[in-house]
Amino acid sequence: MTVFLNGKFLPLSEAHISPLDRGFLFGDGVYEVIPVYAGKLFRGNQHLDRLQNSLNGIRLTNPHSKQEWTGILEELIARQPHDNLSIYLQVTRGADNKRDHSFPGNDIQPTVFIMANELKTAPVATTQDGVCAITQPDDRWEHCDIKAITLLANILLRQQATDQGCAETILIRDGIVIEGAASNVFVVTGKLIKTPNKGHQMLTGITRDLVLEIAASQNIETVECDIAVDELLGADEVWISSSTKEVLPVTSIDGKQIGDGTPGPVWQELISYYADYKKRLVAGEIS
Amino acid sequence: MTVFLNGKFLPLSEAHISPLDRGFLFGDGVYEVIPVYAGKLFRGNQHLDRLQNSLNGIRLTNPHSKQEWTGILEELIARQPHDNLSIYLQVTRGADNKRDHSFPGNDIQPTVFIMANELKTAPVATTQDGVCAITQPDDRWEHCDIKAITLLANILLRQQATDQGCAETILIRDGIVIEGAASNVFVVTGKLIKTPNKGHQMLTGITRDLVLEIAASQNIETVECDIAVDELLGADEVWISSSTKEVLPVTSIDGKQIGDGTPGPVWQELISYYADYKKRLVAGEIS
Repeated sequence: MTVFLNGKFLPLSEAHISPLDRGFLFGDGVYEVIPVYAGKLFRGNQHLDRLQNSLNGIRLTNPHSKQEWTGILEELIARQPHDNLSIYLQVTRGADNKRDHSFPGNDIQPTVFIMANELKTAPVATTQDGVCAITQPDDRWEHCDIKAITLLANILLRQQATDQGCAETILIRDGIVIEGAASNVFVVTGKLIKTPNKGHQMLTGITRDLVLEIAASQNIETVECDIAVDELLGADEVWISSSTKEVLPVTSIDGKQIGDGTPGPVWQELISYYADYKKRLVAGEIS
Repeated sequence: MTVFLNGKFLPLSEAHISPLDRGFLFGDGVYEVIPVYAGKLFRGNQHLDRLQNSLNGIRLTNPHSKQEWTGILEELIARQPHDNLSIYLQVTRGADNKRDHSFPGNDIQPTVFIMANELKTAPVATTQDGVCAITQPDDRWEHCDIKAITLLANILLRQQATDQGCAETILIRDGIVIEGAASNVFVVTGKLIKTPNKGHQMLTGITRDLVLEIAASQNIETVECDIAVDELLGADEVWISSSTKEVLPVTSIDGKQIGDGTPGPVWQELISYYADYKKRLVAGEIS
Protein backbone atom coordinates (compact mmCIF):
# COMPACT_ATOMS: atom_id res chain seq x y z
CA MET A 1 0.00 0.00 0.00
CA THR A 2 1.34 3.42 -0.98
CA VAL A 3 1.03 6.03 1.77
CA PHE A 4 2.08 9.67 2.08
CA LEU A 5 4.47 10.76 4.82
CA ASN A 6 5.97 14.26 5.07
CA GLY A 7 6.13 15.06 1.37
CA LYS A 8 6.86 11.57 0.05
CA PHE A 9 4.79 8.75 -1.42
CA LEU A 10 6.19 5.43 -0.20
CA PRO A 11 5.19 1.88 0.74
CA LEU A 12 3.59 1.63 4.19
CA SER A 13 6.40 -0.74 5.26
CA GLU A 14 8.94 2.05 4.64
CA ALA A 15 6.94 4.74 6.49
CA HIS A 16 8.63 5.31 9.85
CA ILE A 17 7.59 7.58 12.69
CA SER A 18 10.05 8.76 15.32
CA PRO A 19 9.19 7.66 18.86
CA LEU A 20 9.65 11.35 19.72
CA ASP A 21 6.76 12.31 17.44
CA ARG A 22 4.28 14.24 19.57
CA GLY A 23 1.53 12.15 18.01
CA PHE A 24 3.08 9.04 19.59
CA LEU A 25 4.10 10.65 22.92
CA PHE A 26 1.12 12.91 23.61
CA GLY A 27 -1.66 12.27 21.08
CA ASP A 28 -0.84 15.82 20.00
CA GLY A 29 -2.51 15.83 16.59
CA VAL A 30 -5.73 15.84 14.59
CA TYR A 31 -7.14 13.75 11.76
CA GLU A 32 -9.78 13.36 9.07
CA VAL A 33 -11.38 10.36 7.37
CA ILE A 34 -12.55 11.17 3.83
CA PRO A 35 -14.48 8.76 1.63
CA VAL A 36 -13.64 8.48 -2.07
CA TYR A 37 -16.17 7.13 -4.59
CA ALA A 38 -15.03 6.24 -8.12
CA GLY A 39 -11.81 8.10 -7.46
CA LYS A 40 -13.58 11.29 -6.36
CA LEU A 41 -13.27 12.89 -2.93
CA PHE A 42 -16.66 12.95 -1.20
CA ARG A 43 -17.19 16.38 0.37
CA GLY A 44 -13.44 16.96 0.33
CA ASN A 45 -13.86 20.68 0.77
CA GLN A 46 -15.91 20.25 3.94
CA HIS A 47 -13.39 17.75 5.36
CA LEU A 48 -10.52 20.18 4.72
CA ASP A 49 -12.52 22.98 6.39
CA ARG A 50 -13.03 20.77 9.43
CA LEU A 51 -9.33 19.86 9.45
CA GLN A 52 -8.58 23.59 9.65
CA ASN A 53 -11.01 23.94 12.60
CA SER A 54 -9.31 21.04 14.39
CA LEU A 55 -5.85 22.51 13.76
CA ASN A 56 -7.07 25.85 15.12
CA GLY A 57 -8.42 24.00 18.16
CA ILE A 58 -4.97 22.62 19.01
CA ARG A 59 -3.12 25.78 17.90
CA LEU A 60 -1.19 24.10 15.09
CA THR A 61 -0.49 25.91 11.82
CA ASN A 62 -1.88 24.10 8.79
CA PRO A 63 1.16 22.76 6.91
CA HIS A 64 -0.65 22.88 3.53
CA SER A 65 -3.03 25.12 1.63
CA LYS A 66 -6.34 23.59 0.56
CA GLN A 67 -4.99 23.41 -2.99
CA GLU A 68 -1.89 21.55 -1.80
CA TRP A 69 -3.99 19.11 0.25
CA THR A 70 -6.21 18.42 -2.77
CA GLY A 71 -3.17 17.81 -4.96
CA ILE A 72 -1.62 15.38 -2.47
CA LEU A 73 -4.91 13.53 -1.98
CA GLU A 74 -5.56 13.24 -5.72
CA GLU A 75 -2.08 11.86 -6.31
CA LEU A 76 -2.49 9.36 -3.47
CA ILE A 77 -5.87 8.28 -4.89
CA ALA A 78 -4.30 7.81 -8.34
CA ARG A 79 -1.70 5.48 -6.81
CA GLN A 80 -4.29 3.13 -5.23
CA PRO A 81 -5.60 -0.09 -6.79
CA HIS A 82 -9.20 0.65 -5.69
CA ASP A 83 -11.72 3.32 -6.77
CA ASN A 84 -13.71 3.47 -3.56
CA LEU A 85 -11.46 4.47 -0.70
CA SER A 86 -11.42 5.60 2.88
CA ILE A 87 -8.66 8.16 3.19
CA TYR A 88 -7.11 8.58 6.63
CA LEU A 89 -5.19 11.83 7.11
CA GLN A 90 -3.32 12.77 10.28
CA VAL A 91 -1.33 15.88 11.25
CA THR A 92 0.73 15.93 14.45
CA ARG A 93 2.89 18.63 16.03
CA GLY A 94 6.00 16.79 14.81
CA ALA A 95 9.05 15.28 16.51
CA ASP A 96 11.23 17.46 18.71
CA ASN A 97 14.61 16.23 19.98
CA LYS A 98 13.19 15.79 23.49
CA ARG A 99 9.90 15.10 25.31
CA ASP A 100 8.50 18.36 26.69
CA HIS A 101 4.81 19.16 27.21
CA SER A 102 5.25 22.76 25.98
CA PHE A 103 4.96 23.39 22.24
CA PRO A 104 8.26 22.96 20.35
CA GLY A 105 9.92 25.83 18.49
CA ASN A 106 8.93 26.92 15.00
CA ASP A 107 11.80 24.90 13.52
CA ILE A 108 9.89 21.66 14.22
CA GLN A 109 7.72 20.70 11.25
CA PRO A 110 4.34 18.98 11.70
CA THR A 111 4.14 15.32 10.70
CA VAL A 112 1.67 14.59 7.90
CA PHE A 113 0.63 10.96 7.38
CA ILE A 114 -2.03 9.88 4.87
CA MET A 115 -3.16 6.40 3.88
CA ALA A 116 -6.02 5.06 1.77
CA ASN A 117 -7.84 1.79 2.35
CA GLU A 118 -10.47 0.17 0.20
CA LEU A 119 -13.91 1.39 1.23
CA LYS A 120 -16.40 -1.44 1.39
CA THR A 121 -20.13 -0.79 1.55
CA ALA A 122 -22.01 -2.04 4.58
CA PRO A 123 -22.88 -5.77 4.47
CA VAL A 124 -26.43 -6.48 3.28
CA ALA A 125 -27.33 -7.92 6.71
CA THR A 126 -26.44 -4.58 8.29
CA THR A 127 -28.86 -2.62 6.14
CA GLN A 128 -31.54 -5.33 6.19
CA ASP A 129 -31.53 -5.94 9.93
CA GLY A 130 -29.88 -2.81 11.30
CA VAL A 131 -27.21 -2.84 14.00
CA CYS A 132 -27.34 -2.88 17.77
CA ALA A 133 -25.85 -0.26 20.06
CA ILE A 134 -25.33 0.29 23.76
CA THR A 135 -25.36 3.50 25.80
CA GLN A 136 -22.63 4.65 28.16
CA PRO A 137 -21.93 7.83 30.14
CA ASP A 138 -19.74 10.21 28.11
CA ASP A 139 -16.48 10.43 30.06
CA ARG A 140 -14.43 12.15 27.34
CA TRP A 141 -12.85 15.59 27.48
CA GLU A 142 -14.77 18.82 26.89
CA HIS A 143 -13.51 19.58 23.35
CA CYS A 144 -14.91 16.77 21.25
CA ASP A 145 -15.56 19.33 18.49
CA ILE A 146 -11.81 18.97 17.79
CA LYS A 147 -11.19 15.81 15.73
CA ALA A 148 -8.11 14.91 17.77
CA ILE A 149 -6.13 11.67 17.72
CA THR A 150 -6.38 11.40 21.53
CA LEU A 151 -9.06 8.75 21.14
CA LEU A 152 -8.37 6.46 24.10
CA ALA A 153 -11.72 7.30 25.73
CA ASN A 154 -13.53 6.62 22.44
CA ILE A 155 -11.61 3.35 22.02
CA LEU A 156 -12.55 2.10 25.48
CA LEU A 157 -16.19 3.14 25.02
CA ARG A 158 -16.45 1.52 21.58
CA GLN A 159 -14.81 -1.69 22.87
CA GLN A 160 -17.67 -2.09 25.35
CA ALA A 161 -20.05 -2.27 22.36
CA THR A 162 -17.72 -4.68 20.53
CA ASP A 163 -17.60 -6.90 23.63
CA GLN A 164 -21.40 -7.17 23.48
CA GLY A 165 -21.47 -7.84 19.73
CA CYS A 166 -22.79 -4.36 19.02
CA ALA A 167 -21.68 -1.82 16.43
CA GLU A 168 -21.58 1.38 18.46
CA THR A 169 -21.69 3.00 21.89
CA ILE A 170 -24.02 6.00 22.14
CA LEU A 171 -22.69 8.52 24.65
CA ILE A 172 -24.93 10.19 27.21
CA ARG A 173 -24.02 13.30 29.20
CA ASP A 174 -26.37 14.48 31.95
CA GLY A 175 -29.19 12.41 30.46
CA ILE A 176 -28.75 13.92 26.98
CA VAL A 177 -27.63 12.07 23.83
CA ILE A 178 -24.32 13.50 22.55
CA GLU A 179 -23.03 11.25 19.74
CA GLY A 180 -21.66 7.77 19.10
CA ALA A 181 -18.06 6.84 20.00
CA ALA A 182 -17.25 7.34 16.28
CA SER A 183 -20.53 8.52 14.73
CA ASN A 184 -23.37 11.02 15.01
CA VAL A 185 -26.86 10.01 16.10
CA PHE A 186 -30.30 10.66 14.60
CA VAL A 187 -33.64 9.93 16.25
CA VAL A 188 -36.89 9.71 14.27
CA THR A 189 -40.37 10.08 15.75
CA GLY A 190 -43.12 9.80 13.13
CA LYS A 191 -41.64 11.68 10.17
CA LEU A 192 -39.56 14.12 12.23
CA ILE A 193 -35.77 13.64 12.22
CA LYS A 194 -33.96 14.95 15.30
CA THR A 195 -30.21 15.16 15.92
CA PRO A 196 -28.23 16.72 18.80
CA ASN A 197 -27.27 20.38 18.69
CA LYS A 198 -23.76 21.27 17.63
CA GLY A 199 -21.46 22.24 20.48
CA HIS A 200 -17.99 21.69 21.90
CA GLN A 201 -18.97 18.31 23.35
CA MET A 202 -19.52 16.65 19.97
CA LEU A 203 -17.93 16.46 16.56
CA THR A 204 -20.01 17.90 13.77
CA GLY A 205 -20.03 15.08 11.25
CA ILE A 206 -19.74 15.83 7.54
CA THR A 207 -22.25 13.02 6.92
CA ARG A 208 -24.51 14.41 9.68
CA ASP A 209 -24.62 17.76 7.91
CA LEU A 210 -25.21 16.07 4.55
CA VAL A 211 -28.17 14.13 5.98
CA LEU A 212 -29.71 17.42 7.16
CA GLU A 213 -29.00 18.99 3.77
CA ILE A 214 -30.53 16.09 1.83
CA ALA A 215 -33.59 16.03 4.12
CA ALA A 216 -34.08 19.79 3.63
CA SER A 217 -33.84 19.40 -0.15
CA GLN A 218 -36.65 16.81 0.02
CA ASN A 219 -38.79 18.87 2.41
CA ILE A 220 -38.36 16.32 5.20
CA GLU A 221 -38.53 18.10 8.54
CA THR A 222 -35.42 18.03 10.76
CA VAL A 223 -34.57 19.68 14.05
CA GLU A 224 -31.29 20.08 15.95
CA CYS A 225 -32.10 19.91 19.66
CA ASP A 226 -31.40 18.17 22.96
CA ILE A 227 -32.53 14.56 22.90
CA ALA A 228 -33.15 12.84 26.25
CA VAL A 229 -32.08 9.23 26.63
CA ASP A 230 -35.74 8.18 27.07
CA GLU A 231 -36.56 9.76 23.72
CA LEU A 232 -33.71 7.78 22.14
CA LEU A 233 -34.93 4.48 23.56
CA GLY A 234 -38.58 5.24 22.72
CA ALA A 235 -37.96 6.46 19.16
CA ASP A 236 -39.50 4.94 16.02
CA GLU A 237 -36.09 4.91 14.34
CA VAL A 238 -32.50 5.56 15.40
CA TRP A 239 -29.62 6.01 12.95
CA ILE A 240 -25.88 6.49 13.29
CA SER A 241 -23.84 8.27 10.64
CA SER A 242 -20.18 8.61 9.75
CA SER A 243 -18.13 9.13 6.61
CA THR A 244 -17.38 5.44 6.20
CA LYS A 245 -20.57 3.97 7.75
CA GLU A 246 -22.76 6.46 5.83
CA VAL A 247 -26.16 6.18 7.59
CA LEU A 248 -26.94 2.94 9.43
CA PRO A 249 -30.21 1.99 11.10
CA VAL A 250 -29.94 1.05 14.79
CA THR A 251 -32.64 -1.49 15.64
CA SER A 252 -31.69 -2.32 19.22
CA ILE A 253 -30.15 -0.27 22.05
CA ASP A 254 -29.12 -1.74 25.42
CA GLY A 255 -30.97 -4.91 24.38
CA LYS A 256 -34.24 -3.00 23.83
CA GLN A 257 -35.89 -3.08 20.40
CA ILE A 258 -36.14 0.27 18.60
CA GLY A 259 -39.48 0.81 16.76
CA ASP A 260 -40.54 -2.49 15.22
CA GLY A 261 -36.95 -3.78 15.27
CA THR A 262 -36.31 -3.29 11.56
CA PRO A 263 -34.89 -0.37 9.55
CA GLY A 264 -37.72 2.17 9.34
CA PRO A 265 -39.43 3.90 6.43
CA VAL A 266 -37.81 7.31 7.01
CA TRP A 267 -34.35 5.70 6.87
CA GLN A 268 -35.35 3.79 3.69
CA GLU A 269 -36.39 7.06 2.08
CA LEU A 270 -33.36 9.03 3.28
CA ILE A 271 -30.83 6.38 2.25
CA SER A 272 -32.24 6.27 -1.29
CA TYR A 273 -31.72 10.05 -1.57
CA TYR A 274 -28.22 9.55 -0.13
CA ALA A 275 -27.45 6.93 -2.80
CA ASP A 276 -28.74 9.35 -5.49
CA TYR A 277 -26.44 12.03 -4.15
CA LYS A 278 -23.43 9.70 -4.45
CA LYS A 279 -24.48 8.73 -8.01
CA ARG A 280 -24.66 12.37 -9.03
CA LEU A 281 -21.20 12.96 -7.57
CA VAL A 282 -19.74 10.01 -9.45
CA ALA A 283 -21.45 11.22 -12.64
CA GLY A 284 -19.80 14.61 -12.18
CA GLU A 285 -23.15 16.43 -11.75
CA ILE A 286 -22.06 17.79 -8.35
CA SER A 287 -18.64 18.23 -6.79
CA MET B 1 21.29 8.08 22.90
CA THR B 2 20.54 4.38 23.39
CA VAL B 3 16.85 3.59 23.74
CA PHE B 4 14.85 0.39 24.16
CA LEU B 5 12.24 -0.60 21.60
CA ASN B 6 10.43 -3.95 21.61
CA GLY B 7 13.20 -6.08 23.03
CA LYS B 8 16.18 -4.28 21.51
CA PHE B 9 18.62 -1.63 22.66
CA LEU B 10 19.42 0.70 19.76
CA PRO B 11 20.29 4.31 18.92
CA LEU B 12 17.28 6.65 19.01
CA SER B 13 17.86 7.48 15.33
CA GLU B 14 17.26 3.81 14.45
CA ALA B 15 14.12 3.45 16.57
CA HIS B 16 11.16 3.46 14.20
CA ILE B 17 7.46 3.34 15.02
CA SER B 18 4.87 2.21 12.47
CA PRO B 19 2.30 4.87 11.57
CA LEU B 20 -0.25 2.12 12.32
CA ASP B 21 0.91 1.95 15.95
CA ARG B 22 -2.17 2.53 18.08
CA GLY B 23 -0.09 4.92 20.15
CA PHE B 24 0.29 7.15 17.09
CA LEU B 25 -3.24 6.69 15.70
CA PHE B 26 -5.31 6.71 18.90
CA GLY B 27 -3.15 7.63 21.89
CA ASP B 28 -3.90 4.05 22.95
CA GLY B 29 -1.17 3.56 25.53
CA VAL B 30 0.17 4.40 28.98
CA TYR B 31 3.49 5.62 30.34
CA GLU B 32 5.70 6.21 33.36
CA VAL B 33 8.48 8.68 34.13
CA ILE B 34 10.96 7.27 36.67
CA PRO B 35 13.87 9.24 38.13
CA VAL B 36 17.26 7.61 38.56
CA TYR B 37 19.81 8.96 41.06
CA ALA B 38 23.40 7.70 40.94
CA GLY B 39 22.27 4.90 38.68
CA LYS B 40 19.53 3.75 41.06
CA LEU B 41 15.82 3.69 40.25
CA PHE B 42 13.92 6.02 42.58
CA ARG B 43 10.80 4.24 43.83
CA GLY B 44 10.96 1.89 40.85
CA ASN B 45 8.65 -0.59 42.52
CA GLN B 46 5.93 2.00 43.03
CA HIS B 47 6.26 3.20 39.41
CA LEU B 48 5.90 -0.37 38.12
CA ASP B 49 2.85 -0.87 40.36
CA ARG B 50 1.29 2.28 38.90
CA LEU B 51 2.14 1.11 35.37
CA GLN B 52 0.16 -2.06 36.11
CA ASN B 53 -2.79 0.03 37.32
CA SER B 54 -2.69 2.11 34.13
CA LEU B 55 -2.50 -1.00 31.94
CA ASN B 56 -5.48 -2.44 33.83
CA GLY B 57 -7.31 0.84 33.21
CA ILE B 58 -6.95 0.49 29.44
CA ARG B 59 -7.38 -3.32 29.48
CA LEU B 60 -3.91 -4.08 28.12
CA THR B 61 -1.94 -7.09 29.35
CA ASN B 62 1.42 -6.16 30.87
CA PRO B 63 4.04 -7.38 28.39
CA HIS B 64 6.66 -7.89 31.11
CA SER B 65 6.90 -9.14 34.68
CA LYS B 66 8.23 -6.71 37.27
CA GLN B 67 11.50 -8.63 37.26
CA GLU B 68 11.78 -8.30 33.47
CA TRP B 69 11.01 -4.56 33.62
CA THR B 70 13.67 -4.09 36.29
CA GLY B 71 16.22 -5.99 34.20
CA ILE B 72 15.48 -3.92 31.08
CA LEU B 73 15.61 -0.65 33.02
CA GLU B 74 18.89 -1.56 34.73
CA GLU B 75 20.49 -2.47 31.42
CA LEU B 76 19.26 0.78 29.83
CA ILE B 77 20.65 2.76 32.79
CA ALA B 78 24.02 0.99 32.43
CA ARG B 79 24.17 2.08 28.77
CA GLN B 80 23.70 5.81 29.55
CA PRO B 81 26.53 8.36 29.95
CA HIS B 82 24.81 10.02 32.95
CA ASP B 83 24.10 8.80 36.51
CA ASN B 84 21.04 10.94 37.18
CA LEU B 85 18.33 10.14 34.66
CA SER B 86 14.72 10.63 33.86
CA ILE B 87 13.46 7.38 32.38
CA TYR B 88 10.49 7.61 30.05
CA LEU B 89 8.65 4.32 29.52
CA GLN B 90 5.68 3.89 27.18
CA VAL B 91 3.51 0.86 26.36
CA THR B 92 0.97 1.02 23.53
CA ARG B 93 -1.52 -1.53 22.20
CA GLY B 94 0.81 -2.15 19.23
CA ALA B 95 0.47 -1.87 15.46
CA ASP B 96 -2.28 -3.79 13.69
CA ASN B 97 -2.36 -4.04 9.87
CA LYS B 98 -5.32 -1.64 9.72
CA ARG B 99 -6.89 1.25 11.66
CA ASP B 100 -9.85 0.00 13.67
CA HIS B 101 -11.13 1.41 16.96
CA SER B 102 -11.84 -2.04 18.38
CA PHE B 103 -8.99 -3.85 20.15
CA PRO B 104 -6.79 -5.91 17.81
CA GLY B 105 -6.46 -9.69 18.13
CA ASN B 106 -4.12 -11.38 20.58
CA ASP B 107 -1.51 -11.83 17.83
CA ILE B 108 -0.69 -8.10 18.00
CA GLN B 109 2.10 -7.42 20.48
CA PRO B 110 2.19 -4.22 22.56
CA THR B 111 4.86 -1.68 21.63
CA VAL B 112 7.37 -0.95 24.43
CA PHE B 113 9.52 2.17 24.09
CA ILE B 114 11.91 3.38 26.80
CA MET B 115 14.39 6.23 26.76
CA ALA B 116 16.55 7.90 29.41
CA ASN B 117 17.50 11.57 29.49
CA GLU B 118 19.86 13.31 31.85
CA LEU B 119 17.96 14.50 34.92
CA LYS B 120 18.99 18.00 35.89
CA THR B 121 18.11 19.43 39.28
CA ALA B 122 15.92 22.54 39.38
CA PRO B 123 17.79 25.80 38.71
CA VAL B 124 18.76 27.69 41.89
CA ALA B 125 16.45 30.59 40.93
CA THR B 126 13.52 28.16 40.93
CA THR B 127 14.10 27.03 44.48
CA GLN B 128 15.14 30.50 45.71
CA ASP B 129 12.23 32.41 44.20
CA GLY B 130 9.67 29.69 43.53
CA VAL B 131 7.67 29.41 40.32
CA CYS B 132 4.44 30.98 39.13
CA ALA B 133 1.33 29.08 38.09
CA ILE B 134 -2.06 29.83 36.61
CA THR B 135 -5.42 28.16 37.19
CA GLN B 136 -7.73 26.82 34.47
CA PRO B 137 -10.91 24.77 34.45
CA ASP B 138 -10.14 21.05 34.19
CA ASP B 139 -11.57 19.99 30.82
CA ARG B 140 -9.88 16.59 30.65
CA TRP B 141 -11.55 13.18 30.60
CA GLU B 142 -12.87 11.41 33.70
CA HIS B 143 -10.09 8.84 34.11
CA CYS B 144 -7.02 10.89 34.92
CA ASP B 145 -6.03 8.17 37.41
CA ILE B 146 -4.84 6.28 34.30
CA LYS B 147 -1.41 7.62 33.25
CA ALA B 148 -2.36 7.55 29.57
CA ILE B 149 -0.46 9.04 26.63
CA THR B 150 -3.61 10.85 25.46
CA LEU B 151 -2.24 14.09 26.85
CA LEU B 152 -3.55 16.65 24.36
CA ALA B 153 -5.75 18.33 26.99
CA ASN B 154 -2.79 18.49 29.41
CA ILE B 155 -0.56 19.88 26.64
CA LEU B 156 -3.00 22.66 25.78
CA LEU B 157 -3.53 23.50 29.46
CA ARG B 158 0.20 23.57 30.21
CA GLN B 159 0.89 25.69 27.14
CA GLN B 160 -1.34 28.43 28.57
CA ALA B 161 1.04 28.61 31.55
CA THR B 162 4.08 28.58 29.26
CA ASP B 163 2.56 31.44 27.23
CA GLN B 164 2.39 33.50 30.43
CA GLY B 165 5.94 32.60 31.52
CA CYS B 166 4.63 30.30 34.24
CA ALA B 167 5.70 26.78 35.16
CA GLU B 168 2.36 25.06 35.61
CA THR B 169 -1.40 25.18 35.17
CA ILE B 170 -3.39 24.13 38.24
CA LEU B 171 -6.65 22.48 37.23
CA ILE B 172 -9.94 23.32 38.93
CA ARG B 173 -13.11 21.24 38.67
CA ASP B 174 -16.34 22.60 40.19
CA GLY B 175 -14.32 25.03 42.31
CA ILE B 176 -12.06 22.28 43.72
CA VAL B 177 -8.30 21.92 43.11
CA ILE B 178 -7.55 18.65 41.27
CA GLU B 179 -3.87 18.65 40.25
CA GLY B 180 -1.42 20.40 37.93
CA ALA B 181 -1.32 19.66 34.20
CA ALA B 182 1.71 17.44 34.95
CA SER B 183 2.08 17.55 38.75
CA ASN B 184 0.25 17.17 42.05
CA VAL B 185 -0.56 20.13 44.27
CA PHE B 186 0.01 20.78 47.99
CA VAL B 187 -1.41 23.67 50.01
CA VAL B 188 0.03 24.71 53.39
CA THR B 189 -1.81 26.75 56.00
CA GLY B 190 0.25 27.33 59.15
CA LYS B 191 2.02 23.99 59.61
CA LEU B 192 -0.74 21.86 58.07
CA ILE B 193 -0.08 20.31 54.64
CA LYS B 194 -3.16 19.58 52.53
CA THR B 195 -3.37 17.77 49.21
CA PRO B 196 -6.39 16.70 47.13
CA ASN B 197 -8.04 13.34 47.77
CA LYS B 198 -7.19 10.47 45.47
CA GLY B 199 -9.85 9.66 42.90
CA HIS B 200 -10.42 8.89 39.25
CA GLN B 201 -10.06 12.57 38.27
CA MET B 202 -6.39 12.82 39.26
CA LEU B 203 -3.20 10.83 38.99
CA THR B 204 -1.76 9.67 42.28
CA GLY B 205 1.81 10.90 42.05
CA ILE B 206 4.64 8.73 43.36
CA THR B 207 6.31 11.93 44.63
CA ARG B 208 2.99 13.06 46.17
CA ASP B 209 2.81 9.84 48.17
CA LEU B 210 6.48 10.14 49.15
CA VAL B 211 5.88 13.68 50.45
CA LEU B 212 3.04 12.37 52.64
CA GLU B 213 5.24 9.49 53.80
CA ILE B 214 8.18 11.75 54.64
CA ALA B 215 5.90 14.22 56.46
CA ALA B 216 4.38 11.37 58.51
CA SER B 217 7.86 10.09 59.45
CA GLN B 218 8.68 13.57 60.78
CA ASN B 219 5.36 13.99 62.60
CA ILE B 220 4.30 16.82 60.29
CA GLU B 221 0.51 16.83 60.00
CA THR B 222 -0.99 16.18 56.54
CA VAL B 223 -4.54 15.75 55.33
CA GLU B 224 -6.00 14.52 52.03
CA CYS B 225 -9.19 16.49 51.40
CA ASP B 226 -11.06 18.77 49.00
CA ILE B 227 -9.31 22.12 48.58
CA ALA B 228 -11.38 25.04 47.31
CA VAL B 229 -9.77 27.45 44.87
CA ASP B 230 -10.04 30.28 47.45
CA GLU B 231 -8.05 28.17 49.91
CA LEU B 232 -5.38 27.64 47.24
CA LEU B 233 -5.06 31.37 46.52
CA GLY B 234 -5.14 32.29 50.23
CA ALA B 235 -2.64 29.65 51.37
CA ASP B 236 0.64 30.38 53.17
CA GLU B 237 2.47 28.04 50.81
CA VAL B 238 1.64 26.13 47.63
CA TRP B 239 3.85 23.38 46.16
CA ILE B 240 3.74 21.27 43.05
CA SER B 241 5.34 17.83 42.89
CA SER B 242 6.35 15.39 40.18
CA SER B 243 8.98 12.73 39.71
CA THR B 244 11.30 15.05 37.77
CA LYS B 245 10.35 18.39 39.40
CA GLU B 246 10.48 16.82 42.90
CA VAL B 247 8.75 19.44 45.10
CA LEU B 248 8.71 23.05 43.88
CA PRO B 249 7.39 26.09 45.75
CA VAL B 250 4.73 28.10 43.88
CA THR B 251 4.98 31.75 44.92
CA SER B 252 2.43 33.29 42.57
CA ILE B 253 -0.86 32.03 41.10
CA ASP B 254 -2.87 33.96 38.50
CA GLY B 255 -0.60 36.94 39.20
CA LYS B 256 -1.46 36.89 42.93
CA GLN B 257 1.32 36.46 45.48
CA ILE B 258 1.16 33.32 47.63
CA GLY B 259 2.09 33.86 51.29
CA ASP B 260 4.95 36.34 51.46
CA GLY B 261 5.96 35.55 47.86
CA THR B 262 8.95 33.40 48.78
CA PRO B 263 9.39 29.65 49.37
CA GLY B 264 7.95 29.05 52.84
CA PRO B 265 9.38 27.42 55.97
CA VAL B 266 7.35 24.21 55.70
CA TRP B 267 8.67 23.66 52.15
CA GLN B 268 12.23 24.39 53.37
CA GLU B 269 11.85 21.77 56.06
CA LEU B 270 10.18 19.18 53.83
CA ILE B 271 12.67 19.55 50.99
CA SER B 272 15.59 18.98 53.36
CA TYR B 273 14.00 15.70 54.47
CA TYR B 274 13.41 14.88 50.80
CA ALA B 275 17.11 15.47 50.04
CA ASP B 276 18.03 13.23 52.98
CA TYR B 277 15.79 10.50 51.59
CA LYS B 278 17.59 10.69 48.23
CA LYS B 279 20.99 10.58 49.95
CA ARG B 280 20.02 7.47 51.88
CA LEU B 281 18.87 5.84 48.64
CA VAL B 282 22.13 6.67 46.88
CA ALA B 283 24.07 5.36 49.91
CA GLY B 284 22.15 2.09 49.67
CA GLU B 285 20.50 2.54 53.08
CA ILE B 286 17.04 2.24 51.52
CA SER B 287 15.86 0.76 48.23
